[in-house]
Order: sequence, then structure tokens, then C-alpha cells
Amino acid sequence: MTQIQDLDTPALLIDLDIMERNLRRVADYAAAHNLRLRPHTKTHKSILIARRQLGLGAAGLTVAKTGEAEVMLGAEPRDLLVAFPVIGEPKLRRLSSLAAITRITVAIDSLYGAQQLSAAAVAAGVRFGILVETDVGLGRVGVAPSDALDLSREIQKLPGLEWRGITFYPGHIKDQNEAKVAELSQVIGSLLESFEAVGLKPEIVSGGSTPLLFHSHKVQGLNEIRPGTYVFNDLNTVAGGGCALEDCAASVLATVISHAEPGRMIVDGGSKTFSSDRLSSGGPGHGRVMEAPGAVFHKMNEEHGFIDLERAERTFQIGEKIRIIPNHVCVVVNLHEYVYGVRNGVVEEVWNVEARGKLQ
Amino acid sequence: MTQIQDLDTPALLIDLDIMERNLRRVADYAAAHNLRLRPHTKTHKSILIARRQLGLGAAGLTVAKTGEAEVMLGAEPRDLLVAFPVIGEPKLRRLSSLAAITRITVAIDSLYGAQQLSAAAVAAGVRFGILVETDVGLGRVGVAPSDALDLSREIQKLPGLEWRGITFYPGHIKDQNEAKVAELSQVIGSLLESFEAVGLKPEIVSGGSTPLLFHSHKVQGLNEIRPGTYVFNDLNTVAGGGCALEDCAASVLATVISHAEPGRMIVDGGSKTFSSDRLSSGGPGHGRVMEAPGAVFHKMNEEHGFIDLERAERTFQIGEKIRIIPNHVCVVVNLHEYVYGVRNGVVEEVWNVEARGKLQ
Repeated sequence: MTQIQDLDTPALLIDLDIMERNLRRVADYAAAHNLRLRPHTKTHKSILIARRQLGLGAAGLTVAKTGEAEVMLGAEPRDLLVAFPVIGEPKLRRLSSLAAITRITVAIDSLYGAQQLSAAAVAAGVRFGILVETDVGLGRVGVAPSDALDLSREIQKLPGLEWRGITFYPGHIKDQNEAKVAELSQVIGSLLESFEAVGLKPEIVSGGSTPLLFHSHKVQGLNEIRPGTYVFNDLNTVAGGGCALEDCAASVLATVISHAEPGRMIVDGGSKTFSSDRLSSGGPGHGRVMEAPGAVFHKMNEEHGFIDLERAERTFQIGEKIRIIPNHVCVVVNLHEYVYGVRNGVVEEVWNVEARGKLQ
Repeated sequence: MTQIQDLDTPALLIDLDIMERNLRRVADYAAAHNLRLRPHTKTHKSILIARRQLGLGAAGLTVAKTGEAEVMLGAEPRDLLVAFPVIGEPKLRRLSSLAAITRITVAIDSLYGAQQLSAAAVAAGVRFGILVETDVGLGRVGVAPSDALDLSREIQKLPGLEWRGITFYPGHIKDQNEAKVAELSQVIGSLLESFEAVGLKPEIVSGGSTPLLFHSHKVQGLNEIRPGTYVFNDLNTVAGGGCALEDCAASVLATVISHAEPGRMIVDGGSKTFSSDRLSSGGPGHGRVMEAPGAVFHKMNEEHGFIDLERAERTFQIGEKIRIIPNHVCVVVNLHEYVYGVRNGVVEEVWNVEARGKLQ
């Protein structure tokens, strides 16, 4: 039996009690509101966790990259959504191979992208489901809602493609803003009316993100949610009101390696361990020291974390291990080869981050 | 023969002509000034490149982590410096195994750390070389120069350890500041005098970083340099005056996947590909678009790069591939499984980033 304190550092820990509670809460919410749950695997990047999500009733999985789709086939999803415009010959070939094994749906925001997918599907003798990516305000990918109908109709003409509906990511709505949720609901409602007017009925209206997760049922017509971060949560989710601090399952175990300067200590994890993602709120700090929340993790180099102890509740000796809740857990997971599942201070399981670093 | 444009994206490219010029320039500088060159492998994280550095006369290699030391043994260095306080039983055991194979030297800034290393060395029947990490102004790790002598004498009393000298990292000196270099030279000069006064003669005075590389010979007593970034260089090195733009060997090949909004495009690489490291100068942007330096890579999500084209020299179509020089190449390399060595538009070799993600 390995105790947490016996692990070498830095190590990424997941509190299994919290993770299981997070998984159940969202599965229950989706069931209560009759929403398809299609978790985004970008947060955990692990087949083992994907299987648990499917076991709790998820209708399928979401990935960002073709390489992640290849990995997540290992969880045997009935339906896999690549929530990213898949562009370019090599990826289309790989995705076609996957479509021969399971149902693959792709989010697309250009006719060019749809035509390429169509050609690849025809060449390989497979079919791709298509969701039209619609920009509801984030300004990232996606056509304007007013263009979603036109693109949908073009896609319906293309061989090898099955138009299944629309997808959107309301990442611009922060802080549980009810007015913005109502606005979003109106945008989607109008869009669906325009579809209905021409006899188009989307099978899938996919929209939920972790920050707005529990508002999803308030959006007209929305019938699928794709939260990712909810499995572990992080300081960003807390800051955005998407969860409480006690819902954060992930922490990085780090060792104090130097306190050459008074009032400060250095731990053995920096941007290579935590990423250099700041809080999305713009707030300071790179994580929360669980043993002394008054300590400020104010600076990082690649391998060094600088922690200011001026307002810390206690002191620390060189060699002591501490736990730090990260700002943004998805990018942290991507930096770790292994994850340690812990319960009551003991390591219960270790899993591999199979989809780590799948850039293509 | 694979052309660059045939590679799937995102992909990390290294211009071999530039890399070879960078390697030679520093090898020549070290030889001209009779400085031991012990490149820090954190930038390339690859056995292949480490072998080339040794082939060009490097006296040994530098690593940050025990896991990197294990990997770099593959390059068969005669002398391996772990430039990081190695703390904790598991790492000390692993490091002892390495010390049975090659000469291992560790940078230490606490008596606690030295005692632990001594105990591990005695238990395993090996010896560790020790450099006393000295803080010359960065305020990260390292004892104050006034304490370096005391710690050195304590270390000399410990069995299993061989005190070899001092090491420092002048990362606080930016922009080729000659006055600060002169100040540093004085600090090191005085320190060495205090050693001499008690009959201590350090074999190694190790101090060079990439930004100050070509000033190294101006620092009194300095006889070893440990540059890392010089092999590839990046926008940070350019901004700090450490190299010219045409000395940047690394670029990320990315594909335009969306330009749903006018005057803007999205590429298939974000913080998972480039890291979210800002320019150390505090300047804006996440990289320089080689095809249109007026374009501004202003924002990133994990998988999306947002590029503003308002001042770009040209337009781009979905599916086009572009090359982006990163802000901070070390963290970029850590995110990639493979690196493509290119020359004249053709992929000449592909290498694995063996020490990627070695956190422990």
C-alpha cells in the first residue's frame, strides 16, 4: 500500500472520491433533464476514465484531435465526436479508418472542410456524421448562426456525409451569467426555427461546457452536453462559479527543494508540471497550496515553482511534500505520463495518460 | 523525400543548417576562450542532439531532472551535471545507479541536500561530484555568495561527495547589460578570493546561460558554460539580444483551419502545441508567422491559435500551412513527441524527444 507521501514528485494526484462524485453528479443531471452526455475527454485523456463515463450512461465521447480519437477508440464508444475542424489529407485518411470501426461525427465550419471530408468518406467507403459548428459569441471557430442553415443544406448534398445537427461552445459566458444564458437560448431557438421553416430537424443540438453545465437545460432545443473539466475541476472552474473548491479532484504533489531566501520556498514543479496557464479570470497565482492556502504560488520557471510564504499559515522544511490545486487541469494532465488515483491518503490506482500530447 | 508541406500538423521543425551553425558557433567560442562547454539538454531533450554536442567537443552534459539524466546516459557523456537540487529518497536511489555508470555531479544549495546525497552515495558505494549552487541575483535557488564558502567546507567533510566548485545561473541579467556582467564578474571574483584565502581551489566555476553566452569570458574565474537554448534559439533569445532572428532554427508548422471571422484566422495549434509562455520581455504575441510577420498571434486556447491578419502581408486559405517561430522553444519541444529536421524544404531526419515530460 503506497501512501501519497511516499510518491516521488512532482506527481499528479486525483482524489477518487471527488472524481466519482463529479462523474455521478453530471450523469444524474443529464439524465434528469433528458440530455445526451458526451464528455470531452480532453481533460483526462485516459481510456480508463472514458470507460467510467460511458459506464455511467454517456452516449458517446468527444475529442479534439484525430490522434485523441484513435486513442479513445480503446474505450469503445458507440459514437465519437471530433469537436474540431479536421483539415488535411493525412488526418482525413486516419479518420476514415476509424469510421470503419465506430460512428465518427465531425464538427465543421466551412464548406471546404465538408467537401474534403466528403471526398475522404467516399474514397474509403465510410460515412461521417457532421455537426455544423456555430459561433454563439466566443469568436473562435464556427459560422455565424445566420449562416448555419446554408452550410447545413450544402452539407446535406454531399455524399458520404450525414448532417446530424449543430454544435456550439459558449466559452464566452463566464460567471454563471443568467442573462447571457437566456440570450444564448434565444439565439439557438431562432436558429432552430429557421431550420424548422425549411423542414430541417437536427438530431443533435450540442452545447454544454463545464462552466455553464448546470444551465444547459435552460437553452431551447439543446439536447447534448459535452463537458470536459467537470471530471476533475480546477481553480478556473471554481473562479467561474462552476463548482466549489471541494469539488476539485486534482492536485500536484511537489517537494520543497530550496528555501534559500527567507519568506519564500522553491518546489520541484514549474511550467513543465503546471503549464504556464494563468487563471482565466486574470487573477494572480499558479495554484493553491492545500496545506497553506495563504501561501502565494507567484512565479514559475520550467522546473521551479516560487512560493511566497509571507501570509502562509505555516512553514515548510526542505524535503517536505505539499499538494497544489492547479489553475487549469486539462493542460496539467497533458504534461504528465501517469496519474495517481488516491483515496484516504493511499494510492489506489495508477493510470496512463494515453492521449497525452496527441497534437495531430 | 518528404517535403515540409507534406507533413501533418502541428509539427515541430528544426532547420538543420541553422542548428548546425548555432552548435558550431558556440563550440568555437568555448574553444577560443578555453571554456568547458557543458550544454543544458533541457532545450532539445534528445539523445541524438546531445551526441552532436559531445561530438563538437562538449565536455559533458547538463540536465534538470533525474529522469533526464537517465535518458541522457544514452548519449554516453563522460560527465553529467544535474543542475537542480536532487531531494528525496527515490531520486537519490536512481541517481546512485547512474553514478555507477558515469560521473554524476549535482548542484546543491543546502546542507540537508548534501547530507542526503552523501548518505545515498555511501549506501550505494558510489561518489557524487558537488557544485555549490550560488545565487548571483536571480533569487531562485542557491545560497548567497557569502554562504558558498561555508557550505563548500561542510560538503568537503561528507563521505561519498567530491566538492568540485560552484555553479550559478545569471538569469536575471537581460539585454546584454555589460555593467551587470562586470558586477557579476566582481561577485564571482571576490567569492573565488575567499576560497583561495582558505586554500580551496574549485575545479569548476560554471556559469554561462544562453542570453549572456558570448559575455562568459568576461566573468573572472568562470571556466564552464551551460547554455541550452542556443541550439535552436527562439523569440526570447532574439528579444534579449542573444541571437538574431535568422539564428532561430525552430518553427511550428500549422494549418489554417478556420477563418470564419473576417481579418482573422484560426490555426490548429494552441497552448498544447506552443505552451502558454509569454515573451519574457512581457511583449505581446505567441510567435512570429514566418510567411507574414505582420500577422499577430494574439490568443490561444489549448488547440486553437488565434491570428489577427489586419496588418498581415498576405491572406491565407483554409488548409494552407504556415510556420511560426515560438517564444520559448524549450517548453515547445517538451510538448512534441517528434521533431522534424529540415533542410531546403525537405525533411532530412526525424528524431524522438526522449526526455519529453520527464518530471521526476
